[in-house]
Amino acid sequence: MAQPKSPLDQLQEHLRQSQLLGSISSALYYDQNTVMPAAGAEWRGDQLALLASQLHERQSSPAYADLVEAAEAELQASTPAAVRRNLQLLRLELNRQRCLDPQLVAQIAQAQSRGNAIWQEARRRSDFSIFAPALESLIGLRREQATQLAAAEVQHRSPWEILAQPFEPDVSKERLQQLFAPLQDELPVLLQQAAATQESPLPELPEALQENLCTELLNSWGYDPAYCQRSRSAHPFSCTVGPQDFRITTRVVPDQPLSAFLATAHEWGHSLYEQGLPRTGNHYFPWPLGEATSMGVHESQSLFWECRVGRSRAFAERWHPRFCTGLGSGGGSGVGSGSDPWGGALGFWRGLNPLRPGLIRVEADELSYCLHIVLRFELELALLEQELPVAELPDLWNRRMGELLGRTPSSDSEGCLQDIHWAEGLFGYFPSYALGHLISAQLAETMEQELGGPGAIEAAIAAGMESSLRDWLASRVYPLGRSVNAEELVEQVSGQSLSAAAFLRYLRNKLERLQADT
Amino acid sequence: MAQPKSPLDQLQEHLRQSQLLGSISSALYYDQNTVMPAAGAEWRGDQLALLASQLHERQSSPAYADLVEAAEAELQASTPAAVRRNLQLLRLELNRQRCLDPQLVAQIAQAQSRGNAIWQEARRRSDFSIFAPALESLIGLRREQATQLAAAEVQHRSPWEILAQPFEPDVSKERLQQLFAPLQDELPVLLQQAAATQESPLPELPEALQENLCTELLNSWGYDPAYCQRSRSAHPFSCTVGPQDFRITTRVVPDQPLSAFLATAHEWGHSLYEQGLPRTGNHYFPWPLGEATSMGVHESQSLFWECRVGRSRAFAERWHPRFCTGLGSGGGSGVGSGSDPWGGALGFWRGLNPLRPGLIRVEADELSYCLHIVLRFELELALLEQELPVAELPDLWNRRMGELLGRTPSSDSEGCLQDIHWAEGLFGYFPSYALGHLISAQLAETMEQELGGPGAIEAAIAAGMESSLRDWLASRVYPLGRSVNAEELVEQVSGQSLSAAAFLRYLRNKLERLQADT
Repeated sequence: MAQPKSPLDQLQEHLRQSQLLGSISSALYYDQNTVMPAAGAEWRGDQLALLASQLHERQSSPAYADLVEAAEAELQASTPAAVRRNLQLLRLELNRQRCLDPQLVAQIAQAQSRGNAIWQEARRRSDFSIFAPALESLIGLRREQATQLAAAEVQHRSPWEILAQPFEPDVSKERLQQLFAPLQDELPVLLQQAAATQESPLPELPEALQENLCTELLNSWGYDPAYCQRSRSAHPFSCTVGPQDFRITTRVVPDQPLSAFLATAHEWGHSLYEQGLPRTGNHYFPWPLGEATSMGVHESQSLFWECRVGRSRAFAERWHPRFCTGLGSGGGSGVGSGSDPWGGALGFWRGLNPLRPGLIRVEADELSYCLHIVLRFELELALLEQELPVAELPDLWNRRMGELLGRTPSSDSEGCLQDIHWAEGLFGYFPSYALGHLISAQLAETMEQELGGPGAIEAAIAAGMESSLRDWLASRVYPLGRSVNAEELVEQVSGQSLSAAAFLRYLRNKLERLQADT
Repeated sequence: MAQPKSPLDQLQEHLRQSQLLGSISSALYYDQNTVMPAAGAEWRGDQLALLASQLHERQSSPAYADLVEAAEAELQASTPAAVRRNLQLLRLELNRQRCLDPQLVAQIAQAQSRGNAIWQEARRRSDFSIFAPALESLIGLRREQATQLAAAEVQHRSPWEILAQPFEPDVSKERLQQLFAPLQDELPVLLQQAAATQESPLPELPEALQENLCTELLNSWGYDPAYCQRSRSAHPFSCTVGPQDFRITTRVVPDQPLSAFLATAHEWGHSLYEQGLPRTGNHYFPWPLGEATSMGVHESQSLFWECRVGRSRAFAERWHPRFCTGLGSGGGSGVGSGSDPWGGALGFWRGLNPLRPGLIRVEADELSYCLHIVLRFELELALLEQELPVAELPDLWNRRMGELLGRTPSSDSEGCLQDIHWAEGLFGYFPSYALGHLISAQLAETMEQELGGPGAIEAAIAAGMESSLRDWLASRVYPLGRSVNAEELVEQVSGQSLSAAAFLRYLRNKLERLQADT
C-alpha cells in the first residue's frame, strides 16, 4: 500500500491543481484576445467566472486552511528556509482571503464588470459625469474591502496600502513618496532641457515589414517556437499558459511605426522573466517561490528590454539598416538596400527616443512617464483616504497635469478617463509602473559593473550578444521568485537600497547623448 | 426573498455549469491544435485531465443523481414531451456513469494515453507487434466496461453495441449488417466500372490561392466572423467553444491541391449543424435536446456540404474559373485570367471526384469509403466478440482488404495501424462514418423533392443559392437535436426507413455522368 502523503505533499498537490485552474484562465484569456469571435464574449465571461469562483473556493476553503495548518504544524528547526517562506506567503494570502465577506467579493466583481462597461461609454462620450457614480461605488466597495482585509495585516497599513499589497508586497505610501520625490524634482527640469531638441516626424513602415522586424527581434533574443507563441491582439500582453508555454501578443498601430517593435521587446521582457522563474525543486513550482515577486519587478524586466536595450544607441546602430529595408522609392529588398528615411542611425536612435510630454500615459516617453504615475498616485490617495469628492476628480487631474507636465487635457477622455484601472476598481497598481523604471535602471547599473564596467551593456548590444544580458538576469534576478520582495531583490542584487538615483543618472546621460550632434 | 428554485431549474443550472466546463475543454483543445507550442503539451494534458475529472464527478455524483431524481418525481401527465425526453436521456447517461467502477475509468484513461503513444511508435516503425499488447489490454478493459455498462441497458445489447451507444444511440449490429449488405454487393461493381475512367494528375495550387479559395468558399456559405473563427491545424476539425462561438480548422496538404478546400466544406458542414442546433427555450440549451443526436448524423451534415455540394458538377462549373486564377505561365491575377491546367470545368469536376480505391481510409473516394468501414466493423466484432487473437489482426486485415477493395497493404502502417481510433480504445465509432454517407444521400433526396424535384439541388448550386439548401437543413434537420435518434430523424424527414438505396442511386448517377464525355 502506498504511504500516506505528508502534509507538505498534500498541500503541493492542492496548489498544483489551483495552478492548473489559473493557467486554464490564462489560456482562455489568450484565446479571447487573439482569435475568439466577438459573439463568444458572453459565454467566455461565464467560463472565466466559473473558474474564478472555483479558484476562490480552493484558496479560501476550510479544507485548504487545514492543509496549510497541517503543514505549518510540521515546521521544525531543520525546515529549509524556502519551505518556511512558502508557508508564510500562503498563510498571508489565506488570511486575506478568509477575512473577506463572500458577498463583498461578489459585489466587487459585479461593480468591476459594470464599471468597465460604463467607463467605456463615458470615455466614448468623453463625459466623466457618466462614470462618476460607478467610480464612487467602486471606491466605497474597495474601502470596505480594505477594512475587512485590515484584520489580516500584522502591521498597520492604510486602506490604499492594503489594496496595493497584491501588486507590490510590503509597499508603503511613505516609501513611495520618498522614492518619487526626486522624480518630481528633476524630471520637469529634464523635460525642459529636452524641449530644446528638434523632433523629426517618423516615416511610415509597412505592416509586413513591422511584422518581420518583430520576428527577427524575437529570433535574435532567443524566442523558441517550441515554448513560445506570438499572436496579434488589440492590446499587447504577455501571458504564461503553462510551465513550458509562453505567449506574447503585439499589434501594429497606425502612425506609430515603432510601436509594434518596442511592444514586442517589452512583452518579451515580461515573458523572459516568467520563463526564468524557478520551476525546479519541490519548494518552487507550484509554490509561491516559483512566482513573480511584484508587478514592479515584472515591469522592470519588460522595461529593461524595451528601453535599456531596445532604445539604446548601440541597438539603433545595429538595427538601423533593417529598418531601412525595402523603404523609399528604391524599393530594394535586401538588408540596407532601401533608402534611409530616418536620417542615419542617429536619426533612427532619436526616433526610438521621443522626449515630449503628452497627455496619454501609455504613449509617454521615458522622461515624462513617471510623472503620469505620480499624478495617479496622488489622486488615488485623495480619493481613497482624503475624502476627495469624486466629482472634483477631473478638475484636480487637469490642474495637476498642468503643474507636473505642462499640458492640460481638453477633454475627460484624454484626462482622467484614459486608463481602465479605476474602471475596474484597481487602486494601488499604478506605482508599480514607475517602480519598474527605477528597478530596471538600478539593476542595469549592477549588471554593467559585473559585465565589465561602464559601456558593457552597449558593447554587448553592439556585438549582438544580448544573450549575455539575459544570462545575467537569468542567474541574478529570475531565480529569486518570491523569496524576496521587490525592495529586497534590488538590495540583494545591487547591494544598495532602491532609489531613483540610477534612473535619473540613466536619463541625464541619455538626454545628453541624444542632444550631442553625433 | 427569492422563491426556491424548482427541481428542473436546479437541474438546468447544474447542466449549464457542466456545459461551461465541457466548453472550456473545447477551447483548450482548439488552442492546443492551432497555436500551442509543442512544449506545452504535458501541462495541457494535465489541464484537460482536471476538467475531465471535474466533469465526470459532476455527471455521476450523488448530488447530481438527486437532482435528476427530484426532477423525475415532478413529472406529471401535463409535462411537455421535451422535458420527458430530456430527463429520459439524462437518466440513461446517469445510469451508465453510475455503473462504472471509477477505478476502471481511470485504468481506461491511462490505457488510452499509453495506447496512443505506443501506436505512434508502432506506426512509425510500421510494426504491429509493438502495438499488439496495448491493443489487447484496451480490448480487455473495454470489454470489462461493456460488462459493467450492461447493467444500465434496458434491452439486451452485445458488448460492441454497448460501446457504440455513445456515438450512435440505439444502434445494433444486425441493423448495420442489413444497411451495409447492399454496399458490399454493389460498391465493388461500381469500383470496377470506375476503373475504366482515365485519371488525370491534378495541378499544383499555391498555398496562398488555396487559402483564398477556402475564405471565399466560407464567405459564400454564410461564414460570419462575429461568430466563427477559422485557423490552421495539423488535422482539420470543427469545434464549438460556446453557444455563439464556432471554430473550424483546415490545413494545406502537399500534392493534394483540393484537400484544404474540400476539408473546409466538410468542417463547415459540421459547424453549420452545431450552429443550427436548438438553443432557445428552456427545454433545449443546455439540455440534451440541444445536442447533436449522433456521430452519423453529424457526419451526414459534413458530407452533404463536402460531397453533395462541393463535388457536384454545378459547383465545379461555378468554381472552375476561380481555381484557374493566377495559375499557369500567364500569371494573371483577375478571376479567370490565368491559364487552365484542369482541362475545363469537366476536368475540374473529375478532379474533385477521384474514384480509385486506395489503402488509406481518410484519403478514400466516395465509392470505396464505405468498404473501409465495413472492414473495420467486421474486425471490431471479431476482436470484441469473436475471440479473434490480436496477433492475427494484420493478416486478416490484409486479406479482407484485398477481397473488399482489391488492394493489399505492403506494411502495417498502411494497413491496420493507419487509424488512431483503436489506439485510444474507441470501438463502435467507425460505422458512423458510413451511416453519414447513407443519411446524407437520403436526406438530400427529400431536400431535392421539396425544393422542386430532380436537379433542384444542382440548380440552386448553379445559381449560387446554396443558402436555400442551408435554410432547408436549418428548418428540417438541425432543430431536431436529440429529440430523435439518427434512424428516427431520417424517417421523420424523409418518410422512409434509412437504407443504402439513396446513396447507391447517388453514386450510380454520379459515375454515369462522370463517364459521359461532356
